[in-house]
Amino acid sequence: MEKFMVIGERIHCISPTIRKALAERNPEPIIKRAKEQLEAGATYLDVNIGPAEKDGEEVMAWAVQLLQKEFDNVPLALDTVNKKAIEAGLKVYNRSKGKPIINSADAGERIEMIDLAAANDAMVVALCAKQGIPRDNDERIAYCTELLERAMGLGMEPTDVLFDPLFLVVKGMQDKQVEVLEAIKMISEMGLKTTGGLSNNSNGAPKEIRPIMDSATVAMAMQCGLTSAIVNPCDLRLMETIKTCDVIKGNTLYADSYLQL
Amino acid sequence: MEKFMVIGERIHCISPTIRKALAERNPEPIIKRAKEQLEAGATYLDVNIGPAEKDGEEVMAWAVQLLQKEFDNVPLALDTVNKKAIEAGLKVYNRSKGKPIINSADAGERIEMIDLAAANDAMVVALCAKQGIPRDNDERIAYCTELLERAMGLGMEPTDVLFDPLFLVVKGMQDKQVEVLEAIKMISEMGLKTTGGLSNNSNGAPKEIRPIMDSATVAMAMQCGLTSAIVNPCDLRLMETIKTCDVIKGNTLYADSYLQL
Repeated sequence: MEKFMVIGERIHCISPTIRKALAERNPEPIIKRAKEQLEAGATYLDVNIGPAEKDGEEVMAWAVQLLQKEFDNVPLALDTVNKKAIEAGLKVYNRSKGKPIINSADAGERIEMIDLAAANDAMVVALCAKQGIPRDNDERIAYCTELLERAMGLGMEPTDVLFDPLFLVVKGMQDKQVEVLEAIKMISEMGLKTTGGLSNNSNGAPKEIRPIMDSATVAMAMQCGLTSAIVNPCDLRLMETIKTCDVIKGNTLYADSYLQL
Repeated sequence: MEKFMVIGERIHCISPTIRKALAERNPEPIIKRAKEQLEAGATYLDVNIGPAEKDGEEVMAWAVQLLQKEFDNVPLALDTVNKKAIEAGLKVYNRSKGKPIINSADAGERIEMIDLAAANDAMVVALCAKQGIPRDNDERIAYCTELLERAMGLGMEPTDVLFDPLFLVVKGMQDKQVEVLEAIKMISEMGLKTTGGLSNNSNGAPKEIRPIMDSATVAMAMQCGLTSAIVNPCDLRLMETIKTCDVIKGNTLYADSYLQL
């Protein structure tokens, strides 16, 4: 099996620093965060520019070129609901280090993101959801199938669709955790790839608990077949766990120095 | 589901301090280690007196009484190949806090430990092995079935047998890890309980890697259904992971303070 794909989540307009840098087209803070994530072991970098209704096209194209120029065509996930902004990003994207990922489609209003991925030979994060949180795994699998059929009908490789089961917050939805893990297992058993915003699960928990909880969750999810996650790669405990699970699953070879690789 | 059962492994004659204390019937070092493990969250304490061919009966009876008197009848796993020593321990054992565990039976020379457990209404660790390491999961499940049949034939509750799949060392047997986890899943799906010397898997790895590897392994194994392990509860990272997996599985209720409980 392939090594786990770590999509770094830290270039995100929810951060005031990043939002300001995007607005002012100031490279420095963005390059700094990208560097930190890549050094920590990120495979892909997510670039979340928010809804970006005004100048989304310019911003995305600028960010893609900035990052790929600085970091040897680092592969990116283009993250916004603004379709035109994603198209603008795709136009300037260099795929020598990996296909772009469109983040994200769902089985509802955002289903056309699948079409966009198909038209551009891109990968796409596909939320197993339509409106809000899926009620149960029957819904998750129904949406998964719907998204898969649309993608395959348009000629996409099934493995270019990264299905997101929707990780749910433990504090408040503790009773849903087993179900989410079960969904990952079901989707994986179909031979499909999975991803998700894993740290959702520790949202609202005390700060010192979050790396512990994210780390336990990723190990359980990797045992269920999870192939990727959108996470903070600068969380050392999390990255140690991911690398170790890759060793246990035989995705990477054990060496005494495997945590440094 | 029940909370994960942590069997503390640190009262073990492989430690020179403990060996000496057992030989001299010196309570202090044994009580110290017991206290540390219980404070760290151990449910059971394993008492490994080695083969103890000479004075095993006296040593085991002494240790059982010492620990149960000091720690309010703490439940114990009696760990030796010396059957008479186990019998002597059982004779003085107070079961108000939990049945004794006999550690361990296998499908080979030690199969009579099952009979001993059945005769004394004890639990028993049952290694899914006969001679050396099982070749594959066909062997593991064959031995598991053999041990289960013997136990049930003697009137034991199936859940009083804790099946040990044999955790194998990553450094050297990396390609066997998925199989061991798969064995846990198969045994769990039969509704049976599992345990094992989990830290075997990180044997020989650099010291700083061991808690990381044990912690990732326990989370993956708990996702497969592992209900117990014989471990060092003073490994903080490991205990944090076990408690978190218990929360994710719904075995314990989430509270912001769950790591302190």
